[in-house]
Amino acid sequence: MRVRLSPLSQRLVGSSILKIAAEVRELTASGAPVCDLTVGDFARAEFAVPERLSRGVAEHVTHGQTNYPPANGVLALRKAVAAHYKRSLDLDYPLDGIFVASGGRPVIYALYRTVVDSGERVVFPVPSWNNDAYCNIMGAAPVAVPCGPETNFLPTAELLRPHLRGASLLVLNSPSNPAGTMFDAQQLGDICDLVLRENARRGEGERPLYVMYDQIYWMLTFGQPHVNPVGLRPGMAQYTVFADGISKGFAATGLRVGWGVGPSDVIRSMADLLTHLGAWAPRPEQMATAELLGDEPAMAEYRTRMIHDIRERLDLLAGGLEELRQAGLPVGSSAPQGAIYLSAHFDVQGRRTPDGTVLRTNEEIRRYLLQSCGMAVVPFQAFGQPDENGWFRLSVGAVSPRAIRDLIPRLRQALESLT
Amino acid sequence: MRVRLSPLSQRLVGSSILKIAAEVRELTASGAPVCDLTVGDFARAEFAVPERLSRGVAEHVTHGQTNYPPANGVLALRKAVAAHYKRSLDLDYPLDGIFVASGGRPVIYALYRTVVDSGERVVFPVPSWNNDAYCNIMGAAPVAVPCGPETNFLPTAELLRPHLRGASLLVLNSPSNPAGTMFDAQQLGDICDLVLRENARRGEGERPLYVMYDQIYWMLTFGQPHVNPVGLRPGMAQYTVFADGISKGFAATGLRVGWGVGPSDVIRSMADLLTHLGAWAPRPEQMATAELLGDEPAMAEYRTRMIHDIRERLDLLAGGLEELRQAGLPVGSSAPQGAIYLSAHFDVQGRRTPDGTVLRTNEEIRRYLLQSCGMAVVPFQAFGQPDENGWFRLSVGAVSPRAIRDLIPRLRQALESLT
Repeated sequence: MRVRLSPLSQRLVGSSILKIAAEVRELTASGAPVCDLTVGDFARAEFAVPERLSRGVAEHVTHGQTNYPPANGVLALRKAVAAHYKRSLDLDYPLDGIFVASGGRPVIYALYRTVVDSGERVVFPVPSWNNDAYCNIMGAAPVAVPCGPETNFLPTAELLRPHLRGASLLVLNSPSNPAGTMFDAQQLGDICDLVLRENARRGEGERPLYVMYDQIYWMLTFGQPHVNPVGLRPGMAQYTVFADGISKGFAATGLRVGWGVGPSDVIRSMADLLTHLGAWAPRPEQMATAELLGDEPAMAEYRTRMIHDIRERLDLLAGGLEELRQAGLPVGSSAPQGAIYLSAHFDVQGRRTPDGTVLRTNEEIRRYLLQSCGMAVVPFQAFGQPDENGWFRLSVGAVSPRAIRDLIPRLRQALESLT
Repeated sequence: MRVRLSPLSQRLVGSSILKIAAEVRELTASGAPVCDLTVGDFARAEFAVPERLSRGVAEHVTHGQTNYPPANGVLALRKAVAAHYKRSLDLDYPLDGIFVASGGRPVIYALYRTVVDSGERVVFPVPSWNNDAYCNIMGAAPVAVPCGPETNFLPTAELLRPHLRGASLLVLNSPSNPAGTMFDAQQLGDICDLVLRENARRGEGERPLYVMYDQIYWMLTFGQPHVNPVGLRPGMAQYTVFADGISKGFAATGLRVGWGVGPSDVIRSMADLLTHLGAWAPRPEQMATAELLGDEPAMAEYRTRMIHDIRERLDLLAGGLEELRQAGLPVGSSAPQGAIYLSAHFDVQGRRTPDGTVLRTNEEIRRYLLQSCGMAVVPFQAFGQPDENGWFRLSVGAVSPRAIRDLIPRLRQALESLT
């Protein structure tokens, strides 16, 4: 068969999460009870976007806000993001340190292209979302740093220290997708000190080590205060680019509004690149987002309800697993802190299912959970974690409290059936 | 100064059209009469999106269509594009030969990445839009083929023949941005035969030569029937990818809905790549576009009015220039055929302005037209055309018929003032 695609396209690999989703759809269609904890999105029956936002989009599209936005985003939105960051995160950014894109992903892609050259090293913790794929696309050299439950699945200065010398980019994400865990000031501050030291060490001929700080879930936190590199170490401003947007904080994954915030030279270049890609946020959505960010009471009310609803689900799930653990079953989870995720552990390797299969891999555990009790989860391997360690991402964005309550007894039975 | 950006970012160059736009804004702000023919967009006072489209977006965002769309686009829209292409262009494509993106640009970018490797040759006519920039970003070897007024600024088989051997991609665009001219069946058919011959010649080890057929303006044509490679030569289907969307045909540049249509293997890989980039069209806009494309009477009514309004402006402009030409002034234009563009020629090199400046370059002519009579135009050099030949792009998307009528006497005076 004749090769028809570029080397890049030949080495692209499909998402393992999408394959799992197809299996879940099939089981759901068969009528079996399914608690779908695989989706990194929101079910609109459970989490709607702010009414202020949807009404704003409807008004602006009706009133003719339908032409090209400026390449770096409408001015009103860039101003609103600046005010939002000042008010909520105490970060001071000029308008040319902010640009708008069609979600958080184009910000990530543009940053990789803007500060990483082919063959250069990108350091990231695993489990984490999609960094292996970005490195693959760039032809960058991935340096995946495994992080286990002992550090909440987050990197520490100690874990990162051996890897930063000469690297081009360090990717950090808090709250974490997939783990649902958060940096504290000590842990992140120590990492920043390493980055500052590495940059101080570099000569004139070397480009800096940058940090991508993906804080797309920062508005959905309750475990502890959300911290960021620039807030902890002002000197990090020249090396840090924030990836953020409305996708998660406002349950608006389908409206395609994100933004990057960072040093003006890097931001300008990222916006220039995305101009050629056309990865622009739609104009009515930009205008409506600007108004939402400027409406503090609407923001506060929405955020309070959103956190309440997420926390309710995460607590139910963590509580249910803990109840089973106390009953002697081989299961546990991280403590709920934020995002829409919980890390869950199934310590069932080597156990035998009722049909006689011995569970060896995460994939086999995943399939058993789905088939035996309709619990649909994603193994940490989908996030670059290499080990068969029984850890899984549980997302509550698309499930009701009732669905979680109904799941727990089914899960109990599935675990009790193992020998 | 320490280098802070990747080699790619260091070699990115800003858009010369944006620089001109800043000058135009300044002059307009000064209160001088300006006829802004520089904008590749629509002024909403002159060209609004279909009411069916804006109402649809408002309804869908209000009714909760706010979550992730499928990575290759919502099914309803892919079906609607398939039906639209069958009905209007007599093209048969299966659903997996169609994907949706945030406008036409991500389709172009994804195709370059999917079929062109670094160092490989991309052949395109000049003047044309942005291919030099895409080659620059990819690290591809640009092969710009100059096309003059004698071929309507479009490539012919004869012009392309020396360049296709071993090339990875041939970029064609009709109606042309910037020229406003269109292929006829003979001219495009001959080019297709060349492409088919080149592909038949290639051995097992060589990847095919693909054609990008950018037909984003095809709905806005009146000069002659719009033709396409696959319609003329069915064998071209396996080598052709169409770039298209609502941006121009429905004056909806800010709603960010485009699509790519082509061989399933290429389309699948393009969609996979754009998934990582997040260059997705917003979901309410996708749903509304699907409904619009399915509403034949609304489409037909809008298209008739749109073509009438564009043609009125292009005819006024071409007629005005012709009137001056007949009065012995050194000006002329292409015949209006489609898109929102007219190619205009100012044969004034070596002429002297009232303040004594001798006009030598297109840039000097451009500045003289702007300063002397408020006629804002873009030289073909902004579209990769290398010569100081006095040709310019005139866009009517953002001007009223009245503004054009008012311009002609001012232009007459400006040209008469040259010695």
